[in-house]
Amino acid sequence: MSSSAPIGVFDSGIGGTTVVKELMASLPNERIIYFGDTARVPYGNKSAGTVIMYSRQIVKFLLEKKVKAIVIACNTASALALEALKSELEVPIIGVVKPGAKAAAEVTKSNKIGVIATHATINSGIYEDFLHKTDPDIQVFKKACPLFVPLVEEGWVDDDITRQIIHRYLDDLIEKGIDALVLGCTHYPLLADEIRKVTGDGITLVNPAFECAREFRYLLEENNLLCEIGQTGEHEFYVSDGPKAFAELAGSFLGEGIVKRENVKVYTFENDDSVLKTYQIKRRG
Amino acid sequence: MSSSAPIGVFDSGIGGTTVVKELMASLPNERIIYFGDTARVPYGNKSAGTVIMYSRQIVKFLLEKKVKAIVIACNTASALALEALKSELEVPIIGVVKPGAKAAAEVTKSNKIGVIATHATINSGIYEDFLHKTDPDIQVFKKACPLFVPLVEEGWVDDDITRQIIHRYLDDLIEKGIDALVLGCTHYPLLADEIRKVTGDGITLVNPAFECAREFRYLLEENNLLCEIGQTGEHEFYVSDGPKAFAELAGSFLGEGIVKRENVKVYTFENDDSVLKTYQIKRRG
Repeated sequence: MSSSAPIGVFDSGIGGTTVVKELMASLPNERIIYFGDTARVPYGNKSAGTVIMYSRQIVKFLLEKKVKAIVIACNTASALALEALKSELEVPIIGVVKPGAKAAAEVTKSNKIGVIATHATINSGIYEDFLHKTDPDIQVFKKACPLFVPLVEEGWVDDDITRQIIHRYLDDLIEKGIDALVLGCTHYPLLADEIRKVTGDGITLVNPAFECAREFRYLLEENNLLCEIGQTGEHEFYVSDGPKAFAELAGSFLGEGIVKRENVKVYTFENDDSVLKTYQIKRRG
Repeated sequence: MSSSAPIGVFDSGIGGTTVVKELMASLPNERIIYFGDTARVPYGNKSAGTVIMYSRQIVKFLLEKKVKAIVIACNTASALALEALKSELEVPIIGVVKPGAKAAAEVTKSNKIGVIATHATINSGIYEDFLHKTDPDIQVFKKACPLFVPLVEEGWVDDDITRQIIHRYLDDLIEKGIDALVLGCTHYPLLADEIRKVTGDGITLVNPAFECAREFRYLLEENNLLCEIGQTGEHEFYVSDGPKAFAELAGSFLGEGIVKRENVKVYTFENDDSVLKTYQIKRRG
């Protein structure tokens, strides 16, 4: 595998672009091929079997694009599918969960860490698993916050209703005396300023996207896959639905010129025609 | 087609059980086969092409179960896929949108109607289309309310935050002088009591699920498909993911004995093994 090959990044939708942003900052020479599974978003309320199946389909797509390494930019897919994929692949693969947990374990002094994420990530128990491997004495307080993603997508960020909802979700955790809070869903860093207003300065917010980009750099170095010279090709973005909406949102988020409408291509996993052909019924007329 | 055959009902997830409830009340003799596409929920932010493709797959599944007629219990799929499916099918098919629009046109006196729904249903413009066919002078005021579904799923129904969000979404519509409000998403009737507190008694809330069940009865009669004798078999429930969560939620909603855990079966549209077999890469070790 050549170090000039692109890196593959995937997420259940648009949220993974927060990881792309950190990767671009940390690894400016690399060319990125991104896949957002916008037709089947969100993954956060799906079963492990379904998330593994969807992740396998996307990894297969990325391997056909000849990526040299893969980043799972989705907390839910990292929690549920990383281990299965790791055992099946020859290219290095990393998720956002382990680097996030590691950073939280490093910053805590009270040994009390809060984790907020989707229902699937919370129920998987993966953050506790990693945190307890680092230090069995760490106490983990966790909470699923399913309203945060639609609040971000509504653009209700600097908003009184959002602050009340943050209080509703986080007051219990703050009372427990946590001094680190893992933002365990890719959308949540977009609410970081408002969350900080509720949690105060005594609680460090940990962004797994940032930690993952740092860790991924080491992984490329270890495998002699780090690209030393800037790639001339542009980043590529694929989605399974809604390229226009993706280009607009990701474009405004990643900044001018990174995501162009014409660069966002659609790739679907089911074939419409084949479904139609297998109809067992006669057509009218 | 025999009148003793079951009826098929489908939705993007669990929301369509509000339609099942109305069907059970209006057509107590009929046996129902329900499909909830819980692996790919929600449909409300997906493109028309994707929603049509998913709806076709589900209809094919229901036809294999020998249903005599089909109810699309999802506003988004009714808005985006009903016309395509109607032209392809021999069995009668109905959606929730047209009956909902018809009822709203009947109750309005001010000729000002509000419609609340998902982004996809709102953007499709289908409620206006039906309302304007009935009466071109009707003014339609519409609003996508993407936070309502997660609020219902969080169980935050009788809740101050929910009332603030209802105000945020509806105050504009109320100011316009609407006297009818279509609850154009299957989850929204579960918020009806709270919505009524905000809208007051001067605005009639229209529940398309109720109107659809009434209309569907006429459709069966017209086609000589109404079942005159009670079916002995039980209703069947299929989902594409998470049967346990579905059984619990739908069970509590539809009442004792209707949805049993062992009656909720999983049917997935992709085959895990086949995906695995098509891997182009060698395995480690």
